[in-house]
Amino acid sequence: MSFEEMWAALLPVGRDEATGGYHRFAWTPPELECRSWFLDEARRRDLDVEHDANGNMFAWWFPRNGTRHNAVLTGSHLDSVPGGGAFDGPLGIVSAFAAIDRLRQRGVQPERPIGVAALAEEEGARFGVACLGSRLLSGAIDPARARALTDGDGHTFAEVMHNAGLDPEAIGQDDDLLGRIGCYIELHVEQGRALDRPVGIAGSIVPHGRWRFGFTGEGNHAGTTALADRRDPMPPFAGMVLAAREAAERNGTVATVGKVEVVPGGVNAIASSVTAWLDARGPAEDAVRRTVQEVDEAARVAARPHRVSVDLAEESYTEIVEFNLALRDRVGAALGGGVPVLPTGAGHDAGVLSARLPAAMLFVRNPTGVSHAPAEFAEPADCLAGVEALTEVLDDLARG
Amino acid sequence: MSFEEMWAALLPVGRDEATGGYHRFAWTPPELECRSWFLDEARRRDLDVEHDANGNMFAWWFPRNGTRHNAVLTGSHLDSVPGGGAFDGPLGIVSAFAAIDRLRQRGVQPERPIGVAALAEEEGARFGVACLGSRLLSGAIDPARARALTDGDGHTFAEVMHNAGLDPEAIGQDDDLLGRIGCYIELHVEQGRALDRPVGIAGSIVPHGRWRFGFTGEGNHAGTTALADRRDPMPPFAGMVLAAREAAERNGTVATVGKVEVVPGGVNAIASSVTAWLDARGPAEDAVRRTVQEVDEAARVAARPHRVSVDLAEESYTEIVEFNLALRDRVGAALGGGVPVLPTGAGHDAGVLSARLPAAMLFVRNPTGVSHAPAEFAEPADCLAGVEALTEVLDDLARG
Repeated sequence: MSFEEMWAALLPVGRDEATGGYHRFAWTPPELECRSWFLDEARRRDLDVEHDANGNMFAWWFPRNGTRHNAVLTGSHLDSVPGGGAFDGPLGIVSAFAAIDRLRQRGVQPERPIGVAALAEEEGARFGVACLGSRLLSGAIDPARARALTDGDGHTFAEVMHNAGLDPEAIGQDDDLLGRIGCYIELHVEQGRALDRPVGIAGSIVPHGRWRFGFTGEGNHAGTTALADRRDPMPPFAGMVLAAREAAERNGTVATVGKVEVVPGGVNAIASSVTAWLDARGPAEDAVRRTVQEVDEAARVAARPHRVSVDLAEESYTEIVEFNLALRDRVGAALGGGVPVLPTGAGHDAGVLSARLPAAMLFVRNPTGVSHAPAEFAEPADCLAGVEALTEVLDDLARG
Repeated sequence: MSFEEMWAALLPVGRDEATGGYHRFAWTPPELECRSWFLDEARRRDLDVEHDANGNMFAWWFPRNGTRHNAVLTGSHLDSVPGGGAFDGPLGIVSAFAAIDRLRQRGVQPERPIGVAALAEEEGARFGVACLGSRLLSGAIDPARARALTDGDGHTFAEVMHNAGLDPEAIGQDDDLLGRIGCYIELHVEQGRALDRPVGIAGSIVPHGRWRFGFTGEGNHAGTTALADRRDPMPPFAGMVLAAREAAERNGTVATVGKVEVVPGGVNAIASSVTAWLDARGPAEDAVRRTVQEVDEAARVAARPHRVSVDLAEESYTEIVEFNLALRDRVGAALGGGVPVLPTGAGHDAGVLSARLPAAMLFVRNPTGVSHAPAEFAEPADCLAGVEALTEVLDDLARG
C-alpha cells in the first residue's frame, strides 16, 4: 500500500460527517479500527508485531544480523482529540510504513531493528492524561494512578484495559522494552504556522500542563431565586475564563479553557457546580506556574461575593523538554543541513520518552497552523517530503 | 393509598442515588414509570382515564348527573428538570388523588366532573420548550414547530411521540377537551422562600423566556496557537455570563446561564463554538427585554476583539399571567380568607392554560426556597395542609 492508499484507508475512520472532525478515543470502536489497520499494514510488510503491557503496539523490521537491541523506533499515535484533525498522530505512522517501503526499495539492509510505534492515548482525550501509553512505558506515571483514571462515562482505565484483553495489573515501566530502543524519531504535523518550508526539526517542547478548577455553589430555580440568594458558580467560572486570557497575556504564555462541565445543566436551573479545565503552556516553568496561580487567585476573588467555593487540582505537568542535541544534529545532517529547528507548544510522546532515551521529531508544514480541529491540514507534497526526510533519517540511523 | 404511601412509591423513580436529584424527562423510562403509577392510582379510584393527542393524561371522577362539562381540573406534571427535586410537579398530582380520597370520605357527590391532570413535558428539559403539553392543548405553540423540536440525542418530538404510541400528526389545539374544562387548579411547591405559612395562592406569573446565544470561533490547538491568532469563543461567552448578572441587577430582573455546550470540548483544544442558554424573568416585559438586549450587546462587544460571531435566538417567551380574579377570590374564600396571594417567577401549566380558561394555583411552603435541585423540600405537615386546602377548594367548586 502506498502512502496515498494508506491515507485513504484511514481517512473515513471515526470521522464525523457533519463537522469533518475525528473522534478516535483510545479503545473506542474507531480507534480499535485504526489499530486493526496498523496490524494489517505490519503484516503486509512482514513486520513482527509486539504488544506491550501498556496498550502500545510496535511493528518491528529486524535486521539479518539477529540483533534485537539498539533499535531505531519511529511512529506516533492513532487516537485523536474530540473533533480533531486527520493528521495529528496518523501522519507519523503512515509516514513510518511508507519510509520502510522506500528503504526496502533502495535495498537497505538495516544493522539495527527499525520499529513503527502506535502509542496509546497520546491526546489524553479519554482518560485526561496526555501521552498515557508512553508515560506508563517510561515510568512517568504511577500505575495505580493510571488504573484509577476514569473516562467521561465513569469507566476506569483498568476496566477498559481489561475489556480490551489487557491485564491492568501488568501496566507500568518496561525497562526491557526501553532497553531495546536506541532512539525514537517521531514525525508529526506542525501545529503553529511556524514552518516556511516542508520539513523542520523539533528543538524543544515548552513546559505545559492541565489544571482542573471546580466551582461549587448551590443548585436552585432560575426564576424564583433572588439574585442576592444565589450561590451561582457560573459567574465565578466566567471570571476565571477572562482571568486566564489576561494572565497569559501578562506572562507571555498561552492559557485555554476548552472543556467545561455544568451540573445539572438545565436551562431553568442555577448550576450547583461548574468544572473547567485550564491548559497552560509557556517558554519557562515560572511563567506557566505564575499564570495558573494568577488564574486561581482571580477565580477565588470572583467566587467570594457569590459564596461559591473553588478547588484547584493539577492533572498533569510536563517540564521543558530539550531534545537530545547529538541526535538532533545527526538528523539535521542526514537531511543535508539547513533544516530549521523549532520549539513547539504541543506535548508529544517523543517528549515523554526523551527522559529515558534520545528522541527527535520531524515536523511537516501546516500552512494554516490549525490543529486539533477539522481544518488541520498539510499539502500532499509536503507529506511526501516528510516521508522522504524520514526515509533519509532512518537510512542513516539504520547503518548503526 | 394514602398521601404518604403514594409519595413513598414515587420517591425512588428516576432518582440519582449519588446526588439525590431526579432525572424524569418526558417519555424516558423513569417518566414512563411515573405515568404507570398515575394510571394505577386512577384505576385504584375507579377514575376514567383519558389520553389526549398531546401526551397529556387525565383521570376523571364523573358526577352521577351524567355531565361531562364544566369540569374542575386539578393536577400538575410528572417530568423533572435534570437533577431536580422530588416536589416540583408530583406534589400537585399526589395531592390531587389524596384530595379526591378526602372528598369521598366526606361523602361529597360532585355536581361537576373532577379531573386529575398529568401534563406532559412541563419543564421543557427534553425538548427545550416548557409546558409543551399545555401549550399544544391550548394552541399556544404551532404543532409543526413542536414536531420538529429535538432532544439532546437528536430525536424529534414527532419520533418520540410515535415511539410512545401517539400520532404526531394529531397533536395541537383541542377545543373539545378545553371546552369541557371549567377551571384548572394547580397545587405546587413554592419556589422562592416567599411563604411564611403552609399555603398561599398565586397572583401572577412574571414574564419569562429562554434565549440561546451561539458563539462561533475557530477550533485550534491549545498549545501551539498564539493568543493573537486565536478566535476563541470562550472569553466572549464568559463576558456574556458576567453581563447577564449585571444586566439583571440593573433592570430588577433575574438572569441565569445554567446550560452550556462547548464544541469540541477537549482540554487541549481551543473551542470552535460555545452555545449558552439565558433564562431571564422580571416583573414587566420591558425590563426582561432590556435585560436580554443588554446581554446581547455586551456579548457582541466581548466577541469583536476575538473575531467571534454571535447569534441570538429566542426559544420561548411568556407574557405576564394575571390569574383569573374571580376564581382566585373564590379559592381564597374557600380557604377561609386571609391566605396570602403571591406573584411567582416560575412558569406553570396553569399560566399557559389561563389564556383559555380560569386557572388558579395553590402554593405549599418551601422553607429554604430551593427548587430545581435535590435540596427542594416541603415539610410533611405543610404538604398535608396543602392536601386539606385543595380538598376545601375542590369541595366548594364541585358544588357548581
